[in-house]
Amino acid sequence: MVRKNHRFTLAARPVGMVKPTDFSFQEEDLRELADGELLVKVRYISLDPAMRGWMNEGKSYIPPVAIGEVMRAGAIGQVVESRHPRYAVGQHVLGSFGLQEYAISKGDGLTPVDPRLAPLPVMLSTLGMPGLTAYFGLLDIGKPATGNTVVVSGAAGAVGSVVGQIAKIHGCRTVGIAGGADKCRYLGEIGYDAAIDYKAGDLKAKLREHCPKGIDVFFDNVGGDILDAALTQLAPRARIIICGAISQYNNTTPVKGPSNYLSLLVNRASMTGMVVFDYAARYGAAVAEMAQWMAAGKLRSREDSVPGLEQFPQALLKLFTGENHGKLMLELPA
Amino acid sequence: MVRKNHRFTLAARPVGMVKPTDFSFQEEDLRELADGELLVKVRYISLDPAMRGWMNEGKSYIPPVAIGEVMRAGAIGQVVESRHPRYAVGQHVLGSFGLQEYAISKGDGLTPVDPRLAPLPVMLSTLGMPGLTAYFGLLDIGKPATGNTVVVSGAAGAVGSVVGQIAKIHGCRTVGIAGGADKCRYLGEIGYDAAIDYKAGDLKAKLREHCPKGIDVFFDNVGGDILDAALTQLAPRARIIICGAISQYNNTTPVKGPSNYLSLLVNRASMTGMVVFDYAARYGAAVAEMAQWMAAGKLRSREDSVPGLEQFPQALLKLFTGENHGKLMLELPA
Repeated sequence: MVRKNHRFTLAARPVGMVKPTDFSFQEEDLRELADGELLVKVRYISLDPAMRGWMNEGKSYIPPVAIGEVMRAGAIGQVVESRHPRYAVGQHVLGSFGLQEYAISKGDGLTPVDPRLAPLPVMLSTLGMPGLTAYFGLLDIGKPATGNTVVVSGAAGAVGSVVGQIAKIHGCRTVGIAGGADKCRYLGEIGYDAAIDYKAGDLKAKLREHCPKGIDVFFDNVGGDILDAALTQLAPRARIIICGAISQYNNTTPVKGPSNYLSLLVNRASMTGMVVFDYAARYGAAVAEMAQWMAAGKLRSREDSVPGLEQFPQALLKLFTGENHGKLMLELPA
Repeated sequence: MVRKNHRFTLAARPVGMVKPTDFSFQEEDLRELADGELLVKVRYISLDPAMRGWMNEGKSYIPPVAIGEVMRAGAIGQVVESRHPRYAVGQHVLGSFGLQEYAISKGDGLTPVDPRLAPLPVMLSTLGMPGLTAYFGLLDIGKPATGNTVVVSGAAGAVGSVVGQIAKIHGCRTVGIAGGADKCRYLGEIGYDAAIDYKAGDLKAKLREHCPKGIDVFFDNVGGDILDAALTQLAPRARIIICGAISQYNNTTPVKGPSNYLSLLVNRASMTGMVVFDYAARYGAAVAEMAQWMAAGKLRSREDSVPGLEQFPQALLKLFTGENHGKLMLELPA
């Protein structure tokens, strides 16, 4: 019996906001495995802001997805066939399986996943790339000291929610910026000392109010006007982590540069970019530490799991409209 | 006999480009010294891009000059009267004496100057604040490694010309950006490996040509489009030093933020502001090292010395029109 695979390929490079017609939904017959290959049945597919960048032409930290290629995505699945010496049927693995039900792999770049350590969705969120991004960005680049004021944009998102909680564990005062009352309420639930709804206006005044001694660490997922507002409130020797700029990814106009960047000079501050892949050698230790924090009730994870591969284009949009609550992913049947 | 003092005070906060009517030229009778004071006859007055910032209202790394106050400036002078225990008549001192012929000081913040070490103008340029800014900005923040490509904007200026020479001493490949053929010729004379005339157009393509492996260190004195072009050519883990932004100081529109700042993320690069005053404890050692380089012929200094206090407003403009060649200063009679 030939298995059928369903998948989304990239149909067009988006102009401005990504739209459903930028993808093509297809059915294919799965081919037989060759020696050294394994077949993964995909269970959870991570949907991330970075995907928008992968759809653009041009040089970045990884090559763009080609037109006609399966849309790239990190995912967790289970091995259902194997002609690979190191992978057995039944085992769970994490890899760049893409937007599809089944993936054939040669085993390169796969990470075994132990489902007894945490539920699979948590492995894609707090104990996966978003959590690791938060961990290394905050601790390695932000270098937060006890008593520092740490401000996070996109604070209710998969990365931001972890940044705030780790900063709190390290004895910092935490201020989260998010859009809307619901998300701000969530920031309170996960322990942020203060929450600012940027949609309610006057972000600068609110940052001044909640950061009376200035911002020591700013973890930026958003860019644009939010980055510019934060720059006006820096403490001396502040560290800004540039993790992303979701406000700018769907622009048709040029990216808005931070016009207050000379605040870096006045405050002897720094702004540093980070990509989580650079820390791969330390993933294991970081996951172990975060799993301990979760077990101790100090670190909470929240996932927004959308059932059904075919929901992909609509679900992805939630990231850019700010509708998701917690780490966004697709859930496929077991 | 009562001595007369002539001086420039700040008459108005400039809007856009600084103009002569923003200053007021005045004559006053010098008062008698009190106990603990000394009288300095000013000989060389440093004219710096930073002066434009000091004329603006608002918070910065030092308070603005008040309307009616003598315009702030670093200067070297000679003690001509003293009722201060630590300063004797005839001694040379460096201090913030301002735009005037005579300054009365209580001795705070003065640095004794040894005129046998180097000519007085060199003490205001390569062995003064501009040289120290170049030294600490490049070495402490830029951390250049042998073989790195170091790019400098405002490369023919008082700071930039020293940055390029120190980078060369540290075994780097140096690329200077300056405006016009004359300045670019000068970059060759002081040992820059390549010179780019930004006024000749297509800066990005020229940076690509002269930095085939990308920019490891970018020392920025200019900001604006030049910073944005450099951001497109960063090498992995590049360091950008934000020393100034002379292209933006006389703007009436908002500062142009670097719209290519997400290159920091893609390249895991950093952008860090610096103010030389933070390194005061290490000035002595840095001056000693730079004086050795000068004695060995590895570090050349050039001053553009304009005679006469009354030339101040016109001379200051040369900084912003790019007409000065080397460190700009006023020379007053002995």
